[in-house]
Amino acid sequence: MNITQVKVIVTNPGRNFVTAKIETSEGISGVGDATLNGRELAVATYLSEHVAPMLIGRDAFAIEDTWQLMSRASYWRRGPVQTAAQSAIDMALWDIKGKALGVPVYQLLGGRCRTGVMAYTHAGAAEISETIDDLQMFIEQGYHAVRLQCGVPGVPDVYGVDRDTSTQPGAGTERPYVEGWDTSAYLGVVPKLFEAAREAVGFGTHLLHDVHHRLTPSEAGWLGKRLEDHRLFWLEDALASDYQSAYRLVRQHTTTPLAVGEVFTSLVDCEQLIREQLIDYVRASAVHAGGLTGLRKIAAFAEPYQVKTGCHGAADMSPITMAAALHFGVSTHNVGIQERALHPEEADDVFPHAYTFSDGYLDPGEAPGLGVDIDEALAERYEYRRGYLPVVRLRDGTLTNW
Amino acid sequence: MNITQVKVIVTNPGRNFVTAKIETSEGISGVGDATLNGRELAVATYLSEHVAPMLIGRDAFAIEDTWQLMSRASYWRRGPVQTAAQSAIDMALWDIKGKALGVPVYQLLGGRCRTGVMAYTHAGAAEISETIDDLQMFIEQGYHAVRLQCGVPGVPDVYGVDRDTSTQPGAGTERPYVEGWDTSAYLGVVPKLFEAAREAVGFGTHLLHDVHHRLTPSEAGWLGKRLEDHRLFWLEDALASDYQSAYRLVRQHTTTPLAVGEVFTSLVDCEQLIREQLIDYVRASAVHAGGLTGLRKIAAFAEPYQVKTGCHGAADMSPITMAAALHFGVSTHNVGIQERALHPEEADDVFPHAYTFSDGYLDPGEAPGLGVDIDEALAERYEYRRGYLPVVRLRDGTLTNW
Amino acid sequence: MNITQVKVIVTNPGRNFVTAKIETSEGISGVGDATLNGRELAVATYLSEHVAPMLIGRDAFAIEDTWQLMSRASYWRRGPVQTAAQSAIDMALWDIKGKALGVPVYQLLGGRCRTGVMAYTHAGAAEISETIDDLQMFIEQGYHAVRLQCGVPGVPDVYGVDRDTSTQPGAGTERPYVEGWDTSAYLGVVPKLFEAAREAVGFGTHLLHDVHHRLTPSEAGWLGKRLEDHRLFWLEDALASDYQSAYRLVRQHTTTPLAVGEVFTSLVDCEQLIREQLIDYVRASAVHAGGLTGLRKIAAFAEPYQVKTGCHGAADMSPITMAAALHFGVSTHNVGIQERALHPEEADDVFPHAYTFSDGYLDPGEAPGLGVDIDEALAERYEYRRGYLPVVRLRDGTLTNW
Amino acid sequence: MNITQVKVIVTNPGRNFVTAKIETSEGISGVGDATLNGRELAVATYLSEHVAPMLIGRDAFAIEDTWQLMSRASYWRRGPVQTAAQSAIDMALWDIKGKALGVPVYQLLGGRCRTGVMAYTHAGAAEISETIDDLQMFIEQGYHAVRLQCGVPGVPDVYGVDRDTSTQPGAGTERPYVEGWDTSAYLGVVPKLFEAAREAVGFGTHLLHDVHHRLTPSEAGWLGKRLEDHRLFWLEDALASDYQSAYRLVRQHTTTPLAVGEVFTSLVDCEQLIREQLIDYVRASAVHAGGLTGLRKIAAFAEPYQVKTGCHGAADMSPITMAAALHFGVSTHNVGIQERALHPEEADDVFPHAYTFSDGYLDPGEAPGLGVDIDEALAERYEYRRGYLPVVRLRDGTLTNW
Repeated sequence: MNITQVKVIVTNPGRNFVTAKIETSEGISGVGDATLNGRELAVATYLSEHVAPMLIGRDAFAIEDTWQLMSRASYWRRGPVQTAAQSAIDMALWDIKGKALGVPVYQLLGGRCRTGVMAYTHAGAAEISETIDDLQMFIEQGYHAVRLQCGVPGVPDVYGVDRDTSTQPGAGTERPYVEGWDTSAYLGVVPKLFEAAREAVGFGTHLLHDVHHRLTPSEAGWLGKRLEDHRLFWLEDALASDYQSAYRLVRQHTTTPLAVGEVFTSLVDCEQLIREQLIDYVRASAVHAGGLTGLRKIAAFAEPYQVKTGCHGAADMSPITMAAALHFGVSTHNVGIQERALHPEEADDVFPHAYTFSDGYLDPGEAPGLGVDIDEALAERYEYRRGYLPVVRLRDGTLTNW
Repeated sequence: MNITQVKVIVTNPGRNFVTAKIETSEGISGVGDATLNGRELAVATYLSEHVAPMLIGRDAFAIEDTWQLMSRASYWRRGPVQTAAQSAIDMALWDIKGKALGVPVYQLLGGRCRTGVMAYTHAGAAEISETIDDLQMFIEQGYHAVRLQCGVPGVPDVYGVDRDTSTQPGAGTERPYVEGWDTSAYLGVVPKLFEAAREAVGFGTHLLHDVHHRLTPSEAGWLGKRLEDHRLFWLEDALASDYQSAYRLVRQHTTTPLAVGEVFTSLVDCEQLIREQLIDYVRASAVHAGGLTGLRKIAAFAEPYQVKTGCHGAADMSPITMAAALHFGVSTHNVGIQERALHPEEADDVFPHAYTFSDGYLDPGEAPGLGVDIDEALAERYEYRRGYLPVVRLRDGTLTNW
Repeated sequence: MNITQVKVIVTNPGRNFVTAKIETSEGISGVGDATLNGRELAVATYLSEHVAPMLIGRDAFAIEDTWQLMSRASYWRRGPVQTAAQSAIDMALWDIKGKALGVPVYQLLGGRCRTGVMAYTHAGAAEISETIDDLQMFIEQGYHAVRLQCGVPGVPDVYGVDRDTSTQPGAGTERPYVEGWDTSAYLGVVPKLFEAAREAVGFGTHLLHDVHHRLTPSEAGWLGKRLEDHRLFWLEDALASDYQSAYRLVRQHTTTPLAVGEVFTSLVDCEQLIREQLIDYVRASAVHAGGLTGLRKIAAFAEPYQVKTGCHGAADMSPITMAAALHFGVSTHNVGIQERALHPEEADDVFPHAYTFSDGYLDPGEAPGLGVDIDEALAERYEYRRGYLPVVRLRDGTLTNW
Repeated sequence: MNITQVKVIVTNPGRNFVTAKIETSEGISGVGDATLNGRELAVATYLSEHVAPMLIGRDAFAIEDTWQLMSRASYWRRGPVQTAAQSAIDMALWDIKGKALGVPVYQLLGGRCRTGVMAYTHAGAAEISETIDDLQMFIEQGYHAVRLQCGVPGVPDVYGVDRDTSTQPGAGTERPYVEGWDTSAYLGVVPKLFEAAREAVGFGTHLLHDVHHRLTPSEAGWLGKRLEDHRLFWLEDALASDYQSAYRLVRQHTTTPLAVGEVFTSLVDCEQLIREQLIDYVRASAVHAGGLTGLRKIAAFAEPYQVKTGCHGAADMSPITMAAALHFGVSTHNVGIQERALHPEEADDVFPHAYTFSDGYLDPGEAPGLGVDIDEALAERYEYRRGYLPVVRLRDGTLTNW
């Protein structure tokens, strides 16, 4: 079964998505997500102009060889644009193989080793009390794990707070939206948030928090230490992780479990973090870390170190990525949790899918392949709109990490 | 002086080049190279669709802030596509500032600290004797340093041998060209090449060699040890450097100077290599490592560790990158050498430049800015042609590093 | 443009300052600060007798080469006298280049990447309540960050307390002033100072504290831990840093951010502190760490490790150093804060300057060059007076660190 | 017995020397060397303007307290100018105490633990054969250890070759003399020098070699490995040692004994080198590393690590330093060897001394104190002449280490 075509579909059903659809000589097709929020068209071009031609005629079942080709043939390696393209191709090939064999992809990955994948969702409001209202609502909806964010006094716009994350931030503008930041105020408020949350709901629900790369190692150590008694499931992205050894200091000062990695594009980005057991959860995703093949390589490496996965699952990854994450999730031993953000309804229509959510757990379903498709006719109706992820500037104008 | 336009120009005067041309409110324009061999259009799209809009109206003199914006606003960081775009913008802004202030860019980088930059060129033929003929020819042309490659018995196509490197490899085909490889045969021939070369020309000329990522650490240690008495200037890319600590083993076994890094996109890729003094030369280039700003950050980091630069200078980087490398080269203390591959004549016409070569040394010249321009009318005549860098398969079909 | 003269000007408008003024063949001159409090004339002689002769006739634009010459030509390297001389020459050459090109120096350093540099000032009185009165006064003046010191029970004279720091300590005496010290009493009072301060002003203002090299690693760990809940901006000079690894123990025991380095003369003094992320802020200054060139080398090295600068800014550095710090401060990404001590009014007259303070932020202004000059006629009126920095003796007479 | 005066005497009997002469209330005086070649007057000013006033009236016997005062009272610590001043004061106080007690200084340092100190001298000529002629001459003169240098083909001026080192290099000029350098040619010739030397004189004489900071770690490893069979006593200053960990790589590749440290001003400069046993000999000298007190602290630290001293003994240190080195040398257990360069005859006259050389060994003699004095009347006849140590530029103009 050879690859006969690689289509690249860009659509905006509520937000931008880039999809690779691979067609084969046997009429079976597969889909892969290539969305890179804010840089979508670069990936689309990468796929259509540079990747598609070299894949035509290749054996659609030779997934590992194609993955290696995508890794090495570009010579200059890794990076988000490249691995988003690689990820899409890899997912689509697994989808094809599952469909060809008439089984859900998880069966090709070793079969089920759990009944479902625990999901966490996002509660975030300006006021601590509102965040806790949201938390209680999610508990009622069956969630066993909820990420909590709240406003930072004196900072008008803060990550994860009071924003409909299902839609594109900054869409329709020609500039990244500029948020503010105040580390000192932030450090003052977060321990209060979790103190209030534990008082309100006790310890029966997992609570998570996302720092979104804003702290230094010593600040992160400070915060982790002060959250210990609230027993977080994890503290996420406490630091920028470009230089992995920076996590040593955080780890030295706190036993709060640490998660990082939605920006990782390869094991290269986390080999030291995992080998030195500097983190507890690696958040690499199928769409940015090389598809199912890339994600499984990371998980295999992490297994001996008791590091589990907790895949990134923001709404800017299409339902295809969610499906891939769940096939991975039920079949890989060291999976810990799965992030779940809801897509816009239009997106759910454009990407009909078999996966389900129930009692706090996600399941990939039993459809052959990934169990997700793209409705091309519908997709065509939603035109791409340029958008940017936000940036952050401090009060003195210094640009810092979003 | 504000940015009013960012043009992206794709041209193929003998090979593909991508150029960013920034225009300003004062009528001064600057140029930057964004060429990523084999992935050119992805970078072009990245620039035109995602970068250009967010730069319009920004202060053209705020180079560091723009560099930080390019680094952080994409959220998913680094990688070749992204940094090629960032590099082009950075070079163009330095070009503008140099022109605006009426000085060559090196004056903005600390002024001259050497009279010229020693260049090395490439000799490579199937037979050792032919390589040495080439070497002698280059010595007569004034070169003080020459890279030597030769054929590997039993392997039909080998990197760096008998190929006109000025033109695009694989251009006009729709697939990467497949080379072969045989490590054992290679290890047998390379020491003979250098023994013959030293016999022929003595020790008055620097000799270099490029392994092009083909060895394991123990193989590289073996080879380095056997080349020690021939006193190479450097042994290049002995290993793939994704996992930097792999160089420890090589370093432990040989004192042959090591160079690596034409694929680096950031200091992240070499921080450990430099900090642990695992290499002697870092080969990062202005076009792939973040422009002059990025390259200077790497060099500043390397200075305390006696690690020098030896910038990548293959023909698939445009004359703009060469100009940038030379302004960097005469003004930065820990510069060791500069690779020099000739561009096709048509490319030299499309990119008129002030830099010169004489007696083995390169000089950026004294023109304001980078001293290089793009002839847009001429560029338009040369249409982009898809091309791929080669890949390597072992005898058993395994894909390995090119 | 060649150097034609290097004048060395010693003056005491309220306190001693040593200034190098470089004149060039094009009539443009530049100024650099060479003040080394208590050792002023040694630097003046170093400049006039040993440095000036070898600079005459050199290219004034070759800043990096001159910096390297100042570093290496002395053979016995570094140390405060030597680097104060080197710093002055370096600042003066940047001043000249800025004036020659008609731009403020920050434009030569990458352009603005922030709108202003946050300043901190000093509150210090015998009684905690008085220190807090001072703190509240500074907050009303617009400061966002204030360093707090207070008296140590039983110790008559303590660093940073009740002394007009704008004037020369010990001036007019022929001996260093002898202060006392009592670590135990000190450790008892400092947590109370910050508890009272946070109670009085809350967490909206950054608070800093300077230990001034008086503690052992275990004492510093003890103190840092006890200050954590008060969230200091930094704890400064907790230890003498001659042996950098001594900070490992402090770091292990507390997440209170650490700053050190007003005595550093080179990256050599802090390479390990930065590389191992043992500190959060490096306090090297343009006047003692090799001018703008030296300071930028340190900052570039620190950037990957999330270590920021917080330049020393005591009143014994002339307005030239403050100007240099601010050009550096608005153009370098990893700048955190700037110390600000007021100069005597006479000094402000002798060194007319373009920099300004407003709403807690300092700005270098837009004058070409450094934007600071020396009024030579006025300077001549203020004769040098010998002075010494204080020393410290314990109750048993042991000399320890001031 | 109090200090009543600190005289600073600058004289040029063949080369520049700076001497501190301390006078006391009991009429006993002592002398100390403060010479810092090429920066002499800065030290003289440091002493006369900043140090002398604060020493008047102090107890001349309180040597340790004065040493601590000199270390700490300057606040900005260490560095060559400061420690040269400190060293002179320290030597002079030991001289006074010896004279006051009527014993040679070595008796105050623990008494004799060896009969004499083995000396090495310098053989160096353009041709290897001439160097070996010199070597044979020195062996006939009784030397058991000789340092060998030779010319580097193609480099006109090389350190240690064909120059009368007793006189001031560059004296009378207003610029540092510029030497050339070619590492590749140097690495080619040095193994031949030692092969020829061992062939000529066998293994009965210790042979030494001084790289004078010209190599990188990998080059130094290469050279050390190739010299192993010639069993050098030491390979000196293979690298610049600013960053001490750089020696790890050298040490990993060769067992050739390593010496370094004539530029050290404190234990800070070599603590890691010694603690990690990266060197075999520390070359710190009494004149630049804090006098006898400073030197003994370094030796005490080195003793557990089997690191011995081999004090710097170039002709630009006065006979006072040689005397101090010898009192230290016969009384300190881990002393290995002493460098011996002859002073100009006029200098020997200006500094009459008790130390002697016989059968390859130096001895401090039995005169009370250091056994060396300054003839002030004679000294006055020799006026200071400005001079500079040389600098080195590579062929491309890059300034590198002398």
